[in-house]
Amino acid sequence: MPTALPHVVIVGAGFGGLNAAVALRHAPCRVTVIDKLNHHLFQPLLYQVATAGLSPGDIAAPIRHILRNARNTEVLMAEVTGVDVERKCVLLAEGRSIPYDHLIIATGARHSYFGHNEWAAHAPGLKSISDATHIRRNLLCAYEAAEAESDPAKRTALLTFVIVGGGPTGVEMAGSIAELAHRALARDFRHFDPADTHIILAEAGPRILSAFDESLSRAARKKLEALGVDVRTSTRVEAMTNTTVRMNGAEVPTHTVMWAAGVQASPAGSWLGVSTDRAGRVPVNRCLEVEGKPHIYVLGDTALALDEQGQPFPGLAPVAMQQGKYIGTRLQKMIAGTPATEPFRYIDKGTLATVGRTFAVAKIGGLRLKGTLAWLVWVFVHILYLIGFRNRFVVMFDWIWAYATYERAVRLIVEEKS
Amino acid sequence: MPTALPHVVIVGAGFGGLNAAVALRHAPCRVTVIDKLNHHLFQPLLYQVATAGLSPGDIAAPIRHILRNARNTEVLMAEVTGVDVERKCVLLAEGRSIPYDHLIIATGARHSYFGHNEWAAHAPGLKSISDATHIRRNLLCAYEAAEAESDPAKRTALLTFVIVGGGPTGVEMAGSIAELAHRALARDFRHFDPADTHIILAEAGPRILSAFDESLSRAARKKLEALGVDVRTSTRVEAMTNTTVRMNGAEVPTHTVMWAAGVQASPAGSWLGVSTDRAGRVPVNRCLEVEGKPHIYVLGDTALALDEQGQPFPGLAPVAMQQGKYIGTRLQKMIAGTPATEPFRYIDKGTLATVGRTFAVAKIGGLRLKGTLAWLVWVFVHILYLIGFRNRFVVMFDWIWAYATYERAVRLIVEEKS
Repeated sequence: MPTALPHVVIVGAGFGGLNAAVALRHAPCRVTVIDKLNHHLFQPLLYQVATAGLSPGDIAAPIRHILRNARNTEVLMAEVTGVDVERKCVLLAEGRSIPYDHLIIATGARHSYFGHNEWAAHAPGLKSISDATHIRRNLLCAYEAAEAESDPAKRTALLTFVIVGGGPTGVEMAGSIAELAHRALARDFRHFDPADTHIILAEAGPRILSAFDESLSRAARKKLEALGVDVRTSTRVEAMTNTTVRMNGAEVPTHTVMWAAGVQASPAGSWLGVSTDRAGRVPVNRCLEVEGKPHIYVLGDTALALDEQGQPFPGLAPVAMQQGKYIGTRLQKMIAGTPATEPFRYIDKGTLATVGRTFAVAKIGGLRLKGTLAWLVWVFVHILYLIGFRNRFVVMFDWIWAYATYERAVRLIVEEKS
Repeated sequence: MPTALPHVVIVGAGFGGLNAAVALRHAPCRVTVIDKLNHHLFQPLLYQVATAGLSPGDIAAPIRHILRNARNTEVLMAEVTGVDVERKCVLLAEGRSIPYDHLIIATGARHSYFGHNEWAAHAPGLKSISDATHIRRNLLCAYEAAEAESDPAKRTALLTFVIVGGGPTGVEMAGSIAELAHRALARDFRHFDPADTHIILAEAGPRILSAFDESLSRAARKKLEALGVDVRTSTRVEAMTNTTVRMNGAEVPTHTVMWAAGVQASPAGSWLGVSTDRAGRVPVNRCLEVEGKPHIYVLGDTALALDEQGQPFPGLAPVAMQQGKYIGTRLQKMIAGTPATEPFRYIDKGTLATVGRTFAVAKIGGLRLKGTLAWLVWVFVHILYLIGFRNRFVVMFDWIWAYATYERAVRLIVEEKS
């Protein structure tokens, strides 16, 4: 390729970055996709890896393999440490720098512990495969330790799991752990009944799934409670140690806490030297451009983008996907010399959250669904958006298998190498 | 269960320990299976995890789930640190001890670096899932680093992989990496051709697969060479650093070395205070009893057991399986008061090694097979012995998928948590 072609650098190969790269695959430019890991991850199913239902490989695909036929595109596994806006370079950890003509930043978000970073050691969040296998290990090891424990109070603490945050991730985790305890593990222990697992879902706000209508929130809560989950709304976590969590003034003995409460955008704001909102998001205009930083676009969970009503877009996969596609298409036009002034418009195809097997809540346009039909929609959508036929097939097979047998396929505690 | 029943403790849930537990599941005794991890691992397919073909979960199953219907059996995840032979107790890492009436030790083997333990850091072996994902990460990261490297000599070093040991594991690894390089990765890189990967299989002896007949060794070598593997027999590794391996006096620049050369039995000998052979194996009589230590049985890779001709049994999965079944059946008889004096007899059903896709060598009784038919036998046997229908199905599906597409399903680099 002649180097005279403009160079588009995309940082991050999540839903946003990958869709931007795909949209640019036939554009007259060179594209470099940089990610610190080698795989694109289908995050909406990560909770199933954490709860031993799916293998990590089933929901991940190598970025360079997805883009292998995009002959104008290179993939680079590297850690980005900053951006030199003056010299138009992306700075990498090993001291290299990559010059760009257009820069797309789609580096997503991490958990936020609301100023309590010391909680990270006790309450892992769920953003990467290593987060998910970490949670899987914590859960499975708690059951192993409970089997070996003879003191009833200590065993009760080992069988108490606290999930902080009642958004979709927290709700899906809670439902999935409840099914694990009541079904998959039912006959596996000799010194306790796994059905005695105490699963607490703690939400600071007045209701779970606050992005959904109240009727759907209520239905999800009812379903969770039917599964045996102790749903506690208006419940704030105040302190945390290895063996206890304090919520609303009361100490709950537990060894296993999962964090699904808050997110903090990746540090793109400090890379660019712009001020961000409290969640660390970089403000962009309606074309996803950073004001005063020409040729720099930020999208997905890293961006504070506003819709026509001046409301920020929610931090959802479909928003990032559509923004990635939008910015790729827009750059292709700009590079070809076609004017491209249309702002980004989000088409809300709906929001879904699943609660255990066969139950979900869905908000699709004006439609409100709950129950098995919503769950079938959920299954269909998730299989549809998974990348790669092989992964689709294996995930579908594992779901049918789990549905028929109540078993979990991937109950694996892997040694941690020091 | 009344505690008056004799208590059989099985340490290790590999092929030997698991088969012993299964044989004892209806015996009038209590059984405790202790393993430091929670899963039984189908080690013969571990090289496919290391080369990104299968997910760890596909070849592992939770021990307690396999034994969930053995109502006389408990499973304990714990690290054994020793045996108190006088008090008839197994000692655990956390200070607990488990009394036994009969003790079966089936703790397998680890790699041996022939007195060069410092090589372990450079040349991981292949015994556990974390070993396999470690090798997978090394392989995939070498390709990622090669894509980012502009110095041709450094890139050549990054694309040089050395496998030490020409037994079945080394041969299967070499063949699988060759297929990965030539097929699965073919279109994924922009700055080099993955087919230029230099795979060196170094064997100290005069031929690879020395457990097979010479004609099969030759056929396997020819097939490996056709796949592009640089097979070097009578080649001894003398030194190793991060960036180089010295073999027969010559330095080979490489960043990726895999160890498939020697094994060392687990430390059961020191637990029992008996002297072992050079490979650390505990000598046992023909009934797998440790002389002078009543009620203690050692089997599989941990035991030095001799056949009728006074030859030691080879360190193979079928030997461990049959020994486990033998000892379980024998204990069942002894506990029931039936005399049981029959020594262990190994029924050699054959030995197989696969070389890339569609080719294997097999020694089955007097029969010598090589090529596609041997490979079909290999596929059949491995699917047959995998535990669990779900794993059988998913592995078979992944194999058919890989066969049809040449793709690798699980090319995953997972962050290492510090």
